[in-house]
Amino acid sequence: MTKVEAAEAVVLAKSDKKLTWEQIAAEVGMSPVWTTSACLGQNSMPKEVADKLCKFLNLGPEVSAALQAFPYKGSETVVPTDPLIYRLYEIVQVYGPTLKELIHEKFGDGIMSAIDFTMHVEKVPDPKGDRVKLTMNGKFLPYKMW
Amino acid sequence: MTKVEAAEAVVLAKSDKKLTWEQIAAEVGMSPVWTTSACLGQNSMPKEVADKLCKFLNLGPEVSAALQAFPYKGSETVVPTDPLIYRLYEIVQVYGPTLKELIHEKFGDGIMSAIDFTMHVEKVPDPKGDRVKLTMNGKFLPYKMW
Amino acid sequence: MTKVEAAEAVVLAKSDKKLTWEQIAAEVGMSPVWTTSACLGQNSMPKEVADKLCKFLNLGPEVSAALQAFPYKGSETVVPTDPLIYRLYEIVQVYGPTLKELIHEKFGDGIMSAIDFTMHVEKVPDPKGDRVKLTMNGKFLPYKMW
Amino acid sequence: MTKVEAAEAVVLAKSDKKLTWEQIAAEVGMSPVWTTSACLGQNSMPKEVADKLCKFLNLGPEVSAALQAFPYKGSETVVPTDPLIYRLYEIVQVYGPTLKELIHEKFGDGIMSAIDFTMHVEKVPDPKGDRVKLTMNGKFLPYKMW
Amino acid sequence: MTKVEAAEAVVLAKSDKKLTWEQIAAEVGMSPVWTTSACLGQNSMPKEVADKLCKFLNLGPEVSAALQAFPYKGSETVVPTDPLIYRLYEIVQVYGPTLKELIHEKFGDGIMSAIDFTMHVEKVPDPKGDRVKLTMNGKFLPYKMW
Amino acid sequence: MTKVEAAEAVVLAKSDKKLTWEQIAAEVGMSPVWTTSACLGQNSMPKEVADKLCKFLNLGPEVSAALQAFPYKGSETVVPTDPLIYRLYEIVQVYGPTLKELIHEKFGDGIMSAIDFTMHVEKVPDPKGDRVKLTMNGKFLPYKMW
Amino acid sequence: MTKVEAAEAVVLAKSDKKLTWEQIAAEVGMSPVWTTSACLGQNSMPKEVADKLCKFLNLGPEVSAALQAFPYKGSETVVPTDPLIYRLYEIVQVYGPTLKELIHEKFGDGIMSAIDFTMHVEKVPDPKGDRVKLTMNGKFLPYKMW
Amino acid sequence: MTKVEAAEAVVLAKSDKKLTWEQIAAEVGMSPVWTTSACLGQNSMPKEVADKLCKFLNLGPEVSAALQAFPYKGSETVVPTDPLIYRLYEIVQVYGPTLKELIHEKFGDGIMSAIDFTMHVEKVPDPKGDRVKLTMNGKFLPYKMW
Amino acid sequence: MTKVEAAEAVVLAKSDKKLTWEQIAAEVGMSPVWTTSACLGQNSMPKEVADKLCKFLNLGPEVSAALQAFPYKGSETVVPTDPLIYRLYEIVQVYGPTLKELIHEKFGDGIMSAIDFTMHVEKVPDPKGDRVKLTMNGKFLPYKMW
Amino acid sequence: MTKVEAAEAVVLAKSDKKLTWEQIAAEVGMSPVWTTSACLGQNSMPKEVADKLCKFLNLGPEVSAALQAFPYKGSETVVPTDPLIYRLYEIVQVYGPTLKELIHEKFGDGIMSAIDFTMHVEKVPDPKGDRVKLTMNGKFLPYKMW
Repeated sequence: MTKVEAAEAVVLAKSDKKLTWEQIAAEVGMSPVWTTSACLGQNSMPKEVADKLCKFLNLGPEVSAALQAFPYKGSETVVPTDPLIYRLYEIVQVYGPTLKELIHEKFGDGIMSAIDFTMHVEKVPDPKGDRVKLTMNGKFLPYKMW
Repeated sequence: MTKVEAAEAVVLAKSDKKLTWEQIAAEVGMSPVWTTSACLGQNSMPKEVADKLCKFLNLGPEVSAALQAFPYKGSETVVPTDPLIYRLYEIVQVYGPTLKELIHEKFGDGIMSAIDFTMHVEKVPDPKGDRVKLTMNGKFLPYKMW
Repeated sequence: MTKVEAAEAVVLAKSDKKLTWEQIAAEVGMSPVWTTSACLGQNSMPKEVADKLCKFLNLGPEVSAALQAFPYKGSETVVPTDPLIYRLYEIVQVYGPTLKELIHEKFGDGIMSAIDFTMHVEKVPDPKGDRVKLTMNGKFLPYKMW
Repeated sequence: MTKVEAAEAVVLAKSDKKLTWEQIAAEVGMSPVWTTSACLGQNSMPKEVADKLCKFLNLGPEVSAALQAFPYKGSETVVPTDPLIYRLYEIVQVYGPTLKELIHEKFGDGIMSAIDFTMHVEKVPDPKGDRVKLTMNGKFLPYKMW
Repeated sequence: MTKVEAAEAVVLAKSDKKLTWEQIAAEVGMSPVWTTSACLGQNSMPKEVADKLCKFLNLGPEVSAALQAFPYKGSETVVPTDPLIYRLYEIVQVYGPTLKELIHEKFGDGIMSAIDFTMHVEKVPDPKGDRVKLTMNGKFLPYKMW
Repeated sequence: MTKVEAAEAVVLAKSDKKLTWEQIAAEVGMSPVWTTSACLGQNSMPKEVADKLCKFLNLGPEVSAALQAFPYKGSETVVPTDPLIYRLYEIVQVYGPTLKELIHEKFGDGIMSAIDFTMHVEKVPDPKGDRVKLTMNGKFLPYKMW
Repeated sequence: MTKVEAAEAVVLAKSDKKLTWEQIAAEVGMSPVWTTSACLGQNSMPKEVADKLCKFLNLGPEVSAALQAFPYKGSETVVPTDPLIYRLYEIVQVYGPTLKELIHEKFGDGIMSAIDFTMHVEKVPDPKGDRVKLTMNGKFLPYKMW
Repeated sequence: MTKVEAAEAVVLAKSDKKLTWEQIAAEVGMSPVWTTSACLGQNSMPKEVADKLCKFLNLGPEVSAALQAFPYKGSETVVPTDPLIYRLYEIVQVYGPTLKELIHEKFGDGIMSAIDFTMHVEKVPDPKGDRVKLTMNGKFLPYKMW
Repeated sequence: MTKVEAAEAVVLAKSDKKLTWEQIAAEVGMSPVWTTSACLGQNSMPKEVADKLCKFLNLGPEVSAALQAFPYKGSETVVPTDPLIYRLYEIVQVYGPTLKELIHEKFGDGIMSAIDFTMHVEKVPDPKGDRVKLTMNGKFLPYKMW
Repeated sequence: MTKVEAAEAVVLAKSDKKLTWEQIAAEVGMSPVWTTSACLGQNSMPKEVADKLCKFLNLGPEVSAALQAFPYKGSETVVPTDPLIYRLYEIVQVYGPTLKELIHEKFGDGIMSAIDFTMHVEKVPDPKGDRVKLTMNGKFLPYKMW
């Protein structure tokens, strides 16, 4: 079973049981972003997490095995067209050099890791319209000199 | 004077006076991310902010005028090659569909605005290596039906 | 059932019953543009609209469920080749900077939303050849400063 | 003098005289969209319009000649990155097939001309936030059979 | 039945009956170029033409229906690789600006329509090697001013 | 002197002397399409033609030499954006396979040469709107077998 | 049967019978390069050659018919990634302008035909490592003037 | 002095002295293809060859130094547009898999080197039109196993 | 059986038998990198190696035959998106010109062969975090002069 | 002074003084790869290293300042065309999935850092032709779960 088929099985079970990603994440004891990304095939689950998830969703061991496999990450669309995802791309386009300036100013030459990295999504109620809050947290990695 | 020339003038003055973006931002009373992006030519400054900034940096009125102009935003590089900026692109590639799932789950169909939007960068000290924390906050815009 | 399969089912039913998009839109009480785009899988329908549409077209609940799902929007063709759609792309190429100038002149720095957005198509009879009239109406979103 | 240089001369004169595109358009008796596009080098002006415009802006005959020249139209950026212009591209991506369906339904097989074409921009005041209204009007051209 | 399937059915029937495109075109009373393009799915046939063609080729009404449908035109290959088709692309690359100069010189600013357009292919016998003659005839459309 | 500079010199002289491409072509005894393409740097002129042209336009021997040089042909824009030139590209996209079918039907396997090739542009008066007539004539080259 | 399926049938039969392309080519009386290219679907075979080949390989008339069909030539990969084929692409990149200079020097303005063209591959034994010798031979086509 | 400037100096001197590439190559004792490619900046010359060439063409030591520098090879155009060079690209597209088959058949798995490589251009007189003969000769490199 | 199917068969057998690539490589007496690449379809195995591997993994002769076939190498993704593979691409982007300088400095003009080439992966334990060590070893190939 | 100008100054001084990168690296006490990359503008030098280098090469403080600046890394060429650099790209194309398999096998899910990373180039004498040895050493970064 491929990771794509496993993702479809998870999404189907989630829909049948009328569960949310938040509920599934809480059940397996991990964050919603990480849990969702692993279910969609963009992260690999340790065996115990994958098994707990499959038990919760009544899915077989072949789904668990696929969720544990190490994924080929990323999408085939160089510039995303879905408006929600494009806005994130636009933020990189517009604010990339700004973030480069400020991270270098605070930390020196190096990067924010996208591997030793966590992310959370929150809903911030606002009378003028609720707001989406994304928090990214990555280890600063200084360029090595040798 | 173009926005590119104005950006060069600001960066030169900042360097000569040994200032940081944080200090410049504090002086004009705005956040570091917005101030830096406007100095780099990716946002437009209101006249009073641009004038205050130019006075602080001893720059002439033609720089202020250029900082007030409405920019053509974005970069010419479809896939960024600088490692710091590429990691942000990679996050969009890897976590785009995950964020789509979770934002839709919390808010329904719609997007996070990249226009009614703020962002902050923080340094989080950590004994295992300091961490970069990015906080993005955008208004949720539901798709209109008509 | 995917949104692509649902779209095929709707198009087939529409053809069998010799209906127009205008008639379907009128039946569900929405505009033709929005109704068509939702049937083609580029917008999501609220449950009551999807159910009404499926009842009208004698389609099952799995079609309704697919029509309610939140779509991945946009096309895979970066530059459209169909002449009708290309002309719209050409208008963006030729008049993009002009619209940028005029919207900024009237509203200041910001954009026309494509989310809080409506569109209508009309036929304008003309003895020298009938004309297509497209009306787009999007909320102006000023760039936030922070 | 190239059309690019002429455009810069017009923009500079407009800025020096603190004029708007609407005022310039009114002076030469044409619409704001067409006048702006011609000044930016995306349409050609008849001699009398170009001369009237240059007289109004105190620009020499070489500017008038450049404004009369027939332009190479379009931009070099296949996918626009400026958010205002990108939203128009996104509308083509999301609603292109919908407009194809509806135009064919109302008119038969053919296209909306982008040549025999007019466009207007209006500001629609709205207590929940002003709105941008774009009206496009193009001759329907049926595909010829032979 | 899709237009692709209809095209395959027509090509198969043509091959079985050992017919040429010229003979098929003559039978339905249209030109060879238009008839071939409609059979290949790049133009839509009026009902009477499609029915006559299907009767001639012993094809069912579902083929006729597909031939009447309005096509998505164009190819997915941005630069064609087949030598015969590439040579046409090369002519556009090499002679595009020349044709722009000469059409503007004869007609003023505007374009040759590819919609109100006919084309014919002829074989011109020549002792040094027969020649292909392509004749294109499109309505001149002047750019509208408004 | 490069071919680009020579082209600018010819275009300037043509404009100063209020000549048309047709008049220049007549003067040097060649067709308008070939003469224009050679002046724009997409074909090379024999010495006697280049000298005659330069004498007629009062241009020096360095222009003549540049017009005789063998050009790098073609444009840097893969998909043309100018509407007049794009329509020619669209014709290749829409009718490429049709022309392939018909040329093979009339001649067998091979191509129409774009080297042993001539082209003419004519204006065809028409009460419903004048028409552009393009005639292309290329030697048929059969694929060699060996 | 498509040309792709015919190619697979030929390759399978060749493998089953433990034949080489050279042997197949010798049997049908043509060169190895042309024969291989026709079997792979990049050239069309005359009926007698295709029938002889199919008889030799015990393949049916539908394979012969597919081998006679006129192919859409070329590959979908713009830059080849296979090292053997990439080296040929690299030679074009590195030596393209050199060949242009030398062919023009020897022949005047024109091209080497890729249609009236033959190619052979030889193995040249060499104590320091055997060498591949490719010989291409194409008719020189001078640019026509008109 | 860059290699581009050196190439311009060589081409200018060649033109002033009315020399051919063949004559220059003969003078320095190397083949025309290699000499031309090195003059155009796609190969590096040993000091003695570069000095001999510069003496012959009356060019200074800075030209010789630039001709000795190691080049960045290749062109920026992914698909060449000049017809002469495109035909070579087309040969790679059409015959790439054929050459792969035949080289593997004769040599086993490996490639033809484009580094340990020579090439010659010849003119083959032919009453039906002279022909261009290109001979490429590259060392076969078997894939190493380890 | 294609090489893709053979790769799937090998990966499945490896997983069923709970083997590592290192173990498989040791069994067939080759290095892990070469063995893995050949199993994944990017190198061809000699018959004895393929047979030994298939015997060890209980796979049939059709798998062995596919492993012996000469592959079309490389991936369809021009810029890799998987983070592990992208980092290798990034190293080429960032250090390509540096390696060019240093290899030319040590060896003169030429390249490192990717054909006569070996590679090894090692794990280097490190208290601050284990490290990946890649060793590449390719024959230096000097550019031939002729 | 930009990093590009600083690189040119360093290369010029290195050439004038007939130094090698190895000698410069030894002088500043860093490795040749890192030193060269920093001189070419792809890494930033600490002040003391930059000053030492500039003193050694008799370059002014503005060069030192530019060498200390934080670079925008990477090249504009998506697929490199220079043969030496292309071979590295080819290795990524051919061996990327193999390295992914083996690194995951040895370390689990994660990547080799290109930031906490060193690289060395060595010349390995070999009677059959000297060999280039590249050693890359990057910290393994496991994907974080949260």
